[in-house]
Formats: sequence, C-alpha cells, structure tokens
Amino acid sequence: MPDQLALLESPSEGSLNSVLKSLASTVGQAHVLTRGTSGDLSAWEQDWRRRWHGRALAVVRPGSTAEVAAVLRLCAAHGVAVVPQGGNTGLVGGGVPDDSGTQVLLSLQRLNRVRGIDSANLSLTAEAGCVLQHVQAAAAEAGLLFPLSLAAEGSCTIGGNLATNAGGTQVLRFGNARELCLGLEVVTAEGDIWDGLSGLRKDNTGYDLRDLYCGSEGTLGVITAATLKLYPQPAASTTALAACATLADAVALLKLARDRLGAGLTGFELMGRFALELVARHFPSLPRPLPQAPWTVLLEYADADSEAAARSRSEALLEAALEAGVVQDAVVAESLAQSRALWHVRESIPLAQAEEGLNIKHDIALPVSAIPAFVEGTDAALQSHFPGVRLVNFGHLGDGNLHYNVQAPLGTDGAQFLAEREHAVNTLVFDAVATHGGSFSAEHGIGALKRDELAARKHPVALALMRRIKAALDPQGLLNPGRVL
Amino acid sequence: MPDQLALLESPSEGSLNSVLKSLASTVGQAHVLTRGTSGDLSAWEQDWRRRWHGRALAVVRPGSTAEVAAVLRLCAAHGVAVVPQGGNTGLVGGGVPDDSGTQVLLSLQRLNRVRGIDSANLSLTAEAGCVLQHVQAAAAEAGLLFPLSLAAEGSCTIGGNLATNAGGTQVLRFGNARELCLGLEVVTAEGDIWDGLSGLRKDNTGYDLRDLYCGSEGTLGVITAATLKLYPQPAASTTALAACATLADAVALLKLARDRLGAGLTGFELMGRFALELVARHFPSLPRPLPQAPWTVLLEYADADSEAAARSRSEALLEAALEAGVVQDAVVAESLAQSRALWHVRESIPLAQAEEGLNIKHDIALPVSAIPAFVEGTDAALQSHFPGVRLVNFGHLGDGNLHYNVQAPLGTDGAQFLAEREHAVNTLVFDAVATHGGSFSAEHGIGALKRDELAARKHPVALALMRRIKAALDPQGLLNPGRVL
Repeated sequence: MPDQLALLESPSEGSLNSVLKSLASTVGQAHVLTRGTSGDLSAWEQDWRRRWHGRALAVVRPGSTAEVAAVLRLCAAHGVAVVPQGGNTGLVGGGVPDDSGTQVLLSLQRLNRVRGIDSANLSLTAEAGCVLQHVQAAAAEAGLLFPLSLAAEGSCTIGGNLATNAGGTQVLRFGNARELCLGLEVVTAEGDIWDGLSGLRKDNTGYDLRDLYCGSEGTLGVITAATLKLYPQPAASTTALAACATLADAVALLKLARDRLGAGLTGFELMGRFALELVARHFPSLPRPLPQAPWTVLLEYADADSEAAARSRSEALLEAALEAGVVQDAVVAESLAQSRALWHVRESIPLAQAEEGLNIKHDIALPVSAIPAFVEGTDAALQSHFPGVRLVNFGHLGDGNLHYNVQAPLGTDGAQFLAEREHAVNTLVFDAVATHGGSFSAEHGIGALKRDELAARKHPVALALMRRIKAALDPQGLLNPGRVL
Repeated sequence: MPDQLALLESPSEGSLNSVLKSLASTVGQAHVLTRGTSGDLSAWEQDWRRRWHGRALAVVRPGSTAEVAAVLRLCAAHGVAVVPQGGNTGLVGGGVPDDSGTQVLLSLQRLNRVRGIDSANLSLTAEAGCVLQHVQAAAAEAGLLFPLSLAAEGSCTIGGNLATNAGGTQVLRFGNARELCLGLEVVTAEGDIWDGLSGLRKDNTGYDLRDLYCGSEGTLGVITAATLKLYPQPAASTTALAACATLADAVALLKLARDRLGAGLTGFELMGRFALELVARHFPSLPRPLPQAPWTVLLEYADADSEAAARSRSEALLEAALEAGVVQDAVVAESLAQSRALWHVRESIPLAQAEEGLNIKHDIALPVSAIPAFVEGTDAALQSHFPGVRLVNFGHLGDGNLHYNVQAPLGTDGAQFLAEREHAVNTLVFDAVATHGGSFSAEHGIGALKRDELAARKHPVALALMRRIKAALDPQGLLNPGRVL
C-alpha cells in the first residue's frame, strides 16, 4: 500500500499573524497566550520530564467544544498545525509543540466540567480537561467508582487519558482507559463536531470510531468530552504483600489468585528486589513489612459483600499459596492506613529510581506466560553487553506490563550512560520483547519518542493501514504532526 | 465532508469466467461451488430467516489464510465483489450475496482450527471459521472459560461473532465480542495479510485497528483468525428467578444486585409477562416456578470461592430485595438441572414467538435508567397507533438491551401485519429510542436490513467519518458492498 501521508507546508508569517488575530476573536484575547504577551510558556511548551522543549505560535485555551471547533476550522483554513494538550503529563513527547514557532498548542484545560452523572446507568459525562482525580471524586460523591488510577492522576486530564489509552494499576480488573469509555465527543481536523456521547453498553451501528480516537494521541481528531463507565464501590478491599522466590512463582501466584478471587482481584503488582532496595535506600521511613525476597507481589482484592469476607478470602488465598510453595512469606494489611503505606512503597519506585540517577525506562507488555523466560534471558544479555547495569524491574504483572528499567552501573554517570547507551539498550530489549510476542509500548503510547520504533517494528500492513486512516481523517496532516506516524 | 464511497462497476462476463478459472486454481476446483457444478447453493445464498435470497458467482471455500489472501488479490485485480460469510446465522442480511450473480461468496468455514491455547496467559487463538461452541469447548478442556454465549452458538462462527461484534447473555460481566478479542489476523481488500494476533492486555503501538475491524461486518477486511480472552472457570454459579411488579423495580433490583454481587453478577435477563405466557402456551412442559408477574428477572451469579458461598450470597441478595419491596417473589435453582431449565425458559421466548406467528423484531439498547420511561411511553404509543398489538418484551436488562418485539393483534394475520406495518412500527419505536439516547441496533448489526436507518439516524459527522474510512481501506468498494454504508 502506498504511503498516503500528506506533506505539511509551512504557512507564511503574514498568514500566521492573521491566524493569531482570528484566534483572539474566537476564544478571547485572554486565552491566546504568546511569548510576546504572556512571557514564559514553558508550562505548555516543555514536557514534565523536560526532555522536549518546543516553541508554539500560541497557546490557545478554548472554553467550549464550539470554540475548539472554531479553532480547528481556522487552523484548517490556514494550514496551521495543532498540538492538543491536556495535563501535559505524558512520557513520550506527544503533547508539546515542535520548535518551529508555527504550531498552535491547543490546551483543553478550560473544558473542565463534569456534565452529568447517571447513577442508575453507572455512567458519567466529563469534558476532556477534567483532571482524573476530579472525575474519581465526582463518581465517589455519587457513591460510585471510576476505577482508572495512575501516578499522574492529580494533574493528568481525562481527555489525555483517553487520547493515549492510559493504563495504570487497575487494568487487570477494569481494563485500560479505552475499556472505561462508552462514548466520545470529538472535533475533527476540519472543525466538525461529532457528538458520540452515549451511555450505551451495546451499540452496533457502524464502525467503532470511539476506539479509533482512543489511543490516537490527538493525530486523528480532538477529544472534547467522554461518557465513562462507573462501577459500584466495593464493600471492602484488602491489600497484601507476598514474597516469591522466582518469577515463575509470581506467575503461578497470579493464576491461583485469579482462580480463587475471580474478578475481585483488582491489583497484582510486581516489585523486584533491587527496586525495593532503592526505595529503602532513598525513603528509609517507608515500611518494609517482609524480609528481602527476589520478587515481592502486591495484591489487592475487592469484595462486594463485607470486610470479613474480603479478609477471609485474601487469607485463604495466601495460605493456599504458602502451602503450594509459590509464596515464601506473606502479610495482609490490617488497616486502611497500612494498605495505603504498602501502595506508597510501590508508587515510590519511580521516585527512588530518579534519586538514584538517570536511567533508561521501558514500558513493555508481554504475554504473562512469557515473562519469566523474557526476564531471565534479557537480564543475562544486558549483563553480558553492558556489565554492571542494574535492573529496576517492576510493574503490572497482572496484565503483563513491566517497567523494565535499566540503571547505570554503580559509580558511573547516569546521564552519560543514558546518552551513550540508550539506543543500544533499547534495541536489545525491544528485540527480546518482539521475540516473545510483546509490545514495546504498553501504556505510555508512541508520541515523538517511539515514532521511529513504530516505523521499524510495527507490522508493515498495519502501518500502511494506519497511514491510510491518518490520510483519510486528517488529509492536510495538521493534527499533532510528527507524532505516532 | 464529501461522500468518498467509490461506485462499483460490474465486471464483464468474460472477466467473471476468467476469475472462476483462477479461483479454482487458487483454492482447488472442489472448493469453488457454482450452481452449474454443485446445484443448490441456498445454504450460502439464503439467510436462515429466509428473508434474503441471493445468487453468487461462486461459493469459494479457501482452506488457509494464504488462500483467503490469494482470493482477495484475484477479486481486487478483476473488480469482483466479495461477501464474507461464517456460519450464516446473522439476522440483518449481512452475509448473503445480492442477486446479480457477480459476487463471490467467501465462506470461512474451512478455516476451523484452534491454533493454540496459552493457559498461563488466559488466551486462545482460533481461526475465523471455528464454531463458537467449539471455541467454548476448547477453553473448557483446558479448564478455562470463553464466556461469549448466544442462541446460535452451535452454528455461528467466531469470525462472524467478531465481524458483527456479537453480544449475548454474558455481556454484563464480560462485554461484547469486541471486548473478548485481544488480537486479529485480517486480510485487506487488496489481499495483504495483517498479522495482528497478540495475547497482550496492553499495547499502545498506534491506532486501534483491531476494534475497527470488529463490528465492521466484512466491509473493511476479512477476519481470518483471532486471539481471544479466556477466564478461569468459576467455582460455582447459581441461577435465580425474581418477580417484579414494575420495570422500575427490575432496574432497582439490578442496582442492588450489582452492589451486593459485584462482578459475580454474570446474567440479568428480563422477561415480560406476555413473553412468558407465549412460552407457557407453546411449550407447556417447561417449568413455571413463579406465579405470573408483570416482569420476571433471571439472575445468574458466579462465585470464585464455593457452591455454598454462591448460594448464600444469591439468597442474601434476594432477601434484601424482598425486604426492600423491589421483588415480590423469588426462587433459587436447587440444582444444575433446575438452573438449565430456567435458562431454557428464557431461551424459548423467540421460538414461542415464532410459533405464535410472524412479528416485528427490534434489537434496541437504552441507558438502563431510561428503560422504564421508554417502555411505558412506547407501549402506549403503539397501542394508540396500532390497537391490539401485543408486546413481546424481553432481553438483556443488565446491559440495557431489549428485544422489544411487536406481535400482530390477536386473530389477525402476522404476515399481513408485518408487510403492512413494519415500517410504521419501526419508525415509531426507533424515534422513541432516539429520544431516550438509545441505539436502534444493539447487538445484531446493520447489514442490509438497517442500512437505510443508519443513513437516516446516525450522526452525520460520524457517517461522513465512516465513509472516509471505508474509502481508505476498500477504495474499490468490493468488500460486502451494500452493507452497513
């Protein structure tokens, strides 16, 4: 299939000035920020890991879906590229402008209303700029649960979560952001509004546009609102830690937990010994309830019945696991405070890593059955090619997603290691991932960071299909150019 | 947006003869069936409800994905249209050829291998022509559950299930066919093979092609294999019946059941009084464990722990519902045989209806919260416009899907009623569905039957987007023409 991606010609300076004036009359002068009028725009032009620094024509902050549509019509008419942005918490450089000074940074942050909750239908409609934590809180106020949960939840937005198909810690039970979405409102590249908001669990009227926009990272259209799935709050939940001697034991524990806890198993997080050593080193006040083990698993179980049932089922599982020899030691949190402390240990791993120095991050997924062999083989290959590297291996084992991070050898410079070795380390890791039928991007997306990997590693027919879809829905190539494809 | 659908020119007779010869050399003469050589082709040319009768250029039965690709390359080169077909159990005329005698009927039935099961990853890879029941059985043999379940499971195929995004009785807990699919193998309109088979729960490497093909009814490509999600078999499950005085009570019971049973609630089926009267009239040997009530609900609960736990939680729910007054009477099946008998009653409703005479079928979805008002208002409007019509209302209340069927007035001719009134009844019902934010096709798809409804009722921006995608992926318009769009 031919590559049908349009090549983008840069608009002239006169044209850009005329666009700026029209933008101001569309959304109000106060909501068109430029370096000239507003000074430092780094909150929008730089990603939070500070790996990408761009320069926007302007940061435009529309206040309604109609204004988003007007902005996109204007940009389409003038051939101006648009980079949509939510909370700017992405990890792959997908939401900041390039350094040409010709791209409009479209911030969705002012679209931040929860439009409504339908409790009997277990659904909630929120605008794209709603912060994830606010959506969770709105559901909780109605006595319900919106289960999407991830480290950036205090500042990431639901539009960004959907545009990147975010994952997090509850995927095992509730799926990724895509699976939590019932309907979308989207503005197309031409500035048309598709009202696909819907609280329906079944709707077979044509192609699945919703799931096409979810995960397309703003390259096919701009998500302005979504109807989301809610769940009843569980009556009680328990958190437990279990120590495993091998990764194969951790996988066996996962099977046992699924068999005995069913859909009540809501979290199954893996932490390698070195990951926990880093937490202990840099955050010595955090609890260490179990002695050091090669692998520690954090399990969360939610029960619809009662606190007593939740505890008794969790304990029965761990007893069975100890008896079967797949677990060496285990502990169940005695209180909500203890449970939070255990989760806090898990969530402190990335920070402890950062304290230890720069490192090479991976966000990979594998069939769960392939994980022990992948880790054993890849650990050994890395040691052989890069002697002394330290593996910070942790992640969401329940859905096969590892953050298989590579820290520089002890006593060496992290920044230098990153600069010199990142490409070679990535190639080794991603080749091994491919051999085991895995994915080099599980939950963080492609953005700018992994665009070359996508071009090199994606099945060529899939890549050609994606390019056709991009050309069909964004024929001028104005939406988030240089990302994904 | 412009309508970019290509117009299909009919190939010449000489060209068709040359295609037939090439097809025979591609898949073998024995697998190219024509009326001239094989006689009656009605098993493929007629749908099982006998509403559509077509005439194919040939029925072609490839034996491998490579042969499917070769057939599609051949048809693309000669401009011959292709109608993919699985078990030919569809309800909307989506899988039979038109009467031109120029379309190739591509039967996937010979692609019927289960390619493999990965128990530790809870996944199974099957070819498109595998009968659903065989997939269920293969999972069960490995001690696992493939939860998709619907009336046609003894003859429908997994490829058709995915191409139509089939629903069924377990959607409340496990989702539609789309949600049970991890990866696909697809042959494109040009005859390229996309190997997207994958057992991954997380994979954010580009656009969601999988979900685009699922539910596209063979108009964008041909699904040849799929990797499917499996689940652990529950330790035990219980089936219960509950009698409700009003639909609002049934909706309240659903909320109570979700709160108290959590994800263990796997089925919540609604049966109206008249639907059960028809079953009693035409199948008098079936059990009637509860006295007549305006609405009867069938609940299924699965527990990962034990038989005793399943029973005690089901009974506790029903006691709470009786106490709250949302249920008037209830019974829990005492054995697997009793449980099967209750399901048999539910599954006999369509047959009892057929015995009663021809009727107008609807497959609608609504937000659960809107169902009581929709039914009250629409029942009254139908009585007012078509005095004496009888409503056979039943369906999957748990996911808002009603089979809201309209039977001719007592003593009148069903066939005449269908012929004269179908359009007017549909218009009234679908208008009311739209008013309540619902869908006129919940789980059966569009096919040929609802193509005009789609063109009239779908949001115009969505329709334009769908047409662009169709033109991008099937530029000659050769895949299942006249269906969906």
